[in-house]
Amino acid sequence: MALIVQKFGGTSVGSVERIQQVAEKIKGFRERGDDLVVVVSAMSGETNRLIDLAKQIQADPDPREMDVIVSTGEQVTIGLLAMALKAIGVEAVSMTGPQVRILTDSAHGKARIQQIDDERMRSELAAGRVVIVAGFQGADENGAITTLGRGGSDTTGVALAAALKADECQIYTDVDGVYTTDPRVVERARRLDRITFEEMLEMASLGSKVLQIRSVEFAGKYAVPLRVLHSFKEGPGTLITLEDNVSMEQPVISGIAFNRDEAKLTIRGVPDTPGVAFKILGPVSAANIEVDMIVQNVSMDNTTDFTFTVHRNEFRKAESILKQVASDIGAREVAADDKIAKVSIVGVGMRSHAGVASSMFEALADEGINIQMISTSEIKVSVVIDEKYLELAVRALHTAFGLDAPAAEDA
Amino acid sequence: MALIVQKFGGTSVGSVERIQQVAEKIKGFRERGDDLVVVVSAMSGETNRLIDLAKQIQADPDPREMDVIVSTGEQVTIGLLAMALKAIGVEAVSMTGPQVRILTDSAHGKARIQQIDDERMRSELAAGRVVIVAGFQGADENGAITTLGRGGSDTTGVALAAALKADECQIYTDVDGVYTTDPRVVERARRLDRITFEEMLEMASLGSKVLQIRSVEFAGKYAVPLRVLHSFKEGPGTLITLEDNVSMEQPVISGIAFNRDEAKLTIRGVPDTPGVAFKILGPVSAANIEVDMIVQNVSMDNTTDFTFTVHRNEFRKAESILKQVASDIGAREVAADDKIAKVSIVGVGMRSHAGVASSMFEALADEGINIQMISTSEIKVSVVIDEKYLELAVRALHTAFGLDAPAAEDA
Repeated sequence: MALIVQKFGGTSVGSVERIQQVAEKIKGFRERGDDLVVVVSAMSGETNRLIDLAKQIQADPDPREMDVIVSTGEQVTIGLLAMALKAIGVEAVSMTGPQVRILTDSAHGKARIQQIDDERMRSELAAGRVVIVAGFQGADENGAITTLGRGGSDTTGVALAAALKADECQIYTDVDGVYTTDPRVVERARRLDRITFEEMLEMASLGSKVLQIRSVEFAGKYAVPLRVLHSFKEGPGTLITLEDNVSMEQPVISGIAFNRDEAKLTIRGVPDTPGVAFKILGPVSAANIEVDMIVQNVSMDNTTDFTFTVHRNEFRKAESILKQVASDIGAREVAADDKIAKVSIVGVGMRSHAGVASSMFEALADEGINIQMISTSEIKVSVVIDEKYLELAVRALHTAFGLDAPAAEDA
Repeated sequence: MALIVQKFGGTSVGSVERIQQVAEKIKGFRERGDDLVVVVSAMSGETNRLIDLAKQIQADPDPREMDVIVSTGEQVTIGLLAMALKAIGVEAVSMTGPQVRILTDSAHGKARIQQIDDERMRSELAAGRVVIVAGFQGADENGAITTLGRGGSDTTGVALAAALKADECQIYTDVDGVYTTDPRVVERARRLDRITFEEMLEMASLGSKVLQIRSVEFAGKYAVPLRVLHSFKEGPGTLITLEDNVSMEQPVISGIAFNRDEAKLTIRGVPDTPGVAFKILGPVSAANIEVDMIVQNVSMDNTTDFTFTVHRNEFRKAESILKQVASDIGAREVAADDKIAKVSIVGVGMRSHAGVASSMFEALADEGINIQMISTSEIKVSVVIDEKYLELAVRALHTAFGLDAPAAEDA
C-alpha cells in the first residue's frame, strides 16, 4: 500500500464531466489500496475570470486582496471533487491551503512554502479518506491567504509529497509523459520512461512546458519521485528521479529542447576596456530585462563585439537601451534580430562523454545550418540559429543522437 | 467618532460599478471619522451559480463540501471591495469568516454563531483600516468552513456589531427603510423613523422581506441598534430599537403586514374527543409541513370543525395527508382553499390600548370584507380573508389606523 500525491491541473478539472472522470480515476487507485492526497487547480478559465474582475476594480490590483480573490478558484474545485468522490462511494474530505496549514512567506502572488503541517492530512488518511487539497495557496504567519504564483499547484503537489514522505508525486497533464522532443516537430519523438531532475530542469527551462520549473527543483531538492502522466489515458508516463547509477546504459542525450521566445542583440565595435560588459548589461538589467545567453568575441583592434539574447517581449525595450549605451560608450553600432531560435541538446550522459558538442555541430553543418551563438552547461549544449531552420535542426539532432523511435516497420 | 458595522447585500455589490459606489459611500463615512466594519454578501447571482455547479456533481450535495464551495462567493466580494477602497485611497483589509474567527457549530448550511473573536478586527481598526468581512460564513472548532444559511449576511452584521459593541449596525438594502405597509399596495404608505424589534419581527415574519428574521432576533437579544437604509440613496432609513418609553406618543399600530403565501385547510365534522387536534396535526407535522394559524370552532353535536393554514408550496401535500386523516378519524369532509390572504396589524402600542381588534374588524366590515380566520398575539392581530380583497383591506386598515402619509396638498 503506497502513499501517493496526485495533482490534476485546470484542464483535467475544467468541467463537471472531467471532475467526475478524475473521481473515477481516484476510485480505481483507492480500490488498489493506495492512500491518496489529491491536489487540484482551479477549473480552467476560472483564474483568468477572477483576475479580470479584480483588474476592473484596480488596474494594478493589491496583492494581498488579489490572493483572497484568486484562491477561491481552487477552493471551488476541491469542494466539487470531494462531492464527486462521495457521489461514487469514496470517502473524501477537502482542505484549503490554510486548512492544511501550508505556511508560506508573505510574498503575495509569488509566496514560497516555508512549512507544511502533515498532521491534519495524516489523520484524515488514517480515517480512510482521500484528502483533496487546493493547490497554489497557503497562509502566512498572520493567517493571510497567499498564492504561490501561476502553475503553483505543481509545487503544492511536490511539497505535500515531501512533507508526507510520499512514495510518488504524480502530475496529471494533457500529455502522456516527457518526450525526447516536441512530437509536433519530430514525428518519431519518443516518450522517455525516466529522466533525471537536472535534465528535466533544462528541458523545462528550454520550453518543454510539461512541468513548472519550480516544482521540479523542489522535487529534486527533497528527492521526491515525480511522475508525469496523462489525465485521461492509461500509461506509465515518465518518472523523474535522481540520477541513478543502475541505468548507466542510458543514452548520452535524453532530449532536444528548443524555443522561439528569444531575440538577439549585438553591439559592435565596443572599446575593449575593463568593465565594459557591466556598462552594457548594467542598464539592461536595471530595466528588469532578463538576459539569457551572453557571448563576447575575442578582441580585435582594441574593440570587441558583444551579443546577448533577451525574451522577445522585451526585445524593443532592450534595443533602445542598448542604442543609448552604444552612444555613451562610443561603440560602433547595434544590430538586432528577433528571427532566431534556440536549440539545445540535454543529457546527464554528456558529463562522461567527450565530443557531444562537436557531434551536434557536425549534424547541423551537414544540414547547412549556420550557428550564430553557442553556450554550454554541464548537461546541455545550446545554439542559436536562424528561426527558419528550427524544425530541420531539431529533426537532424534527434536522429543524430539516436533518439528516433523505431519506424513502424522496425517495431 | 462612532464604531459602525455596515452590511451590503448581493444586489448592492452585484457589479464592479456597484462595488465602486459602495466604496465611495464608505469613504464618506471614514471622512466623517467613523470606524467601520463592513460585511458583504456574494455578488448577486454568484451563490446560485455555485449551487448549480455543485448540484451537477451531486444532486443532494454534501453539506460540508457545499459550504467550501459557496463560501467563495463572499470571499471574492471582500477582496474586490478592499481593492476598490484602496483604489480611492482608503486603507482597508479583507477577512473571511474563519480569519475573523467567527466560531460556529458544525451544522453546515445552517450553522449558528457561537463566538466571535474581536481581537483581529480591533487591531486592524486601530491601525486605521476599514475591515471588510465576508458575511454568511464562519468555521467550526475543527476549522471546517461553515455557512449560516441564505441571507445569513445580515446575521453576520448583527453578530459582529454585538461582539464589537458597535454604536449601530446598518443594513443597506434596495429600500430606504421599513414602511407602514407595502408602498406598491398603499400609495400613501410612510417610512417609519423607528420601529421596535418585536414589531419588526412580526412585520418580517408576515412578509415584509426587508431583513432576515434571525438577524432581527439576534439584534434584539443583544440590544444592537439596527438601521435599515438604501444602498444608493441618502436618507435616515429606519432605526430598529428596543421599545423606548420616551416616545409614548407613538401610534397604536406601526404597520400593516400581509402575505399571499398561505393556503387554508378545513376538516369538518370531526368527532370532538380529547386528543383530536394531535390526531389531525401530528401527521402534518410528521411530514415536515409547517402550520401557521390554527382555529378550532366551538363544538356542536359532538363534532367540531378544525381549520389551519400552511405554506402554499405544501398545500397539495397537506391536503392529501388530511384526507387520509379524515378517513381515519371518521370526519365528514376536507375543504381546501388557496385563494386566501393574511393581513395583520402590528404595533407594540396595542398592548396598552383596548379595542384595537374591534377597530380592525369594523374597518373590514365597512368595506364588506368577510373574515375567515382570526388569530392574535400580544402585538399583532391577523385575519385571513379572500385573496381578492387583499389590497382593499390593506388600504382600509392603513387609513383606519392613521398611517397614511399626508396628501400632497396637506404637506
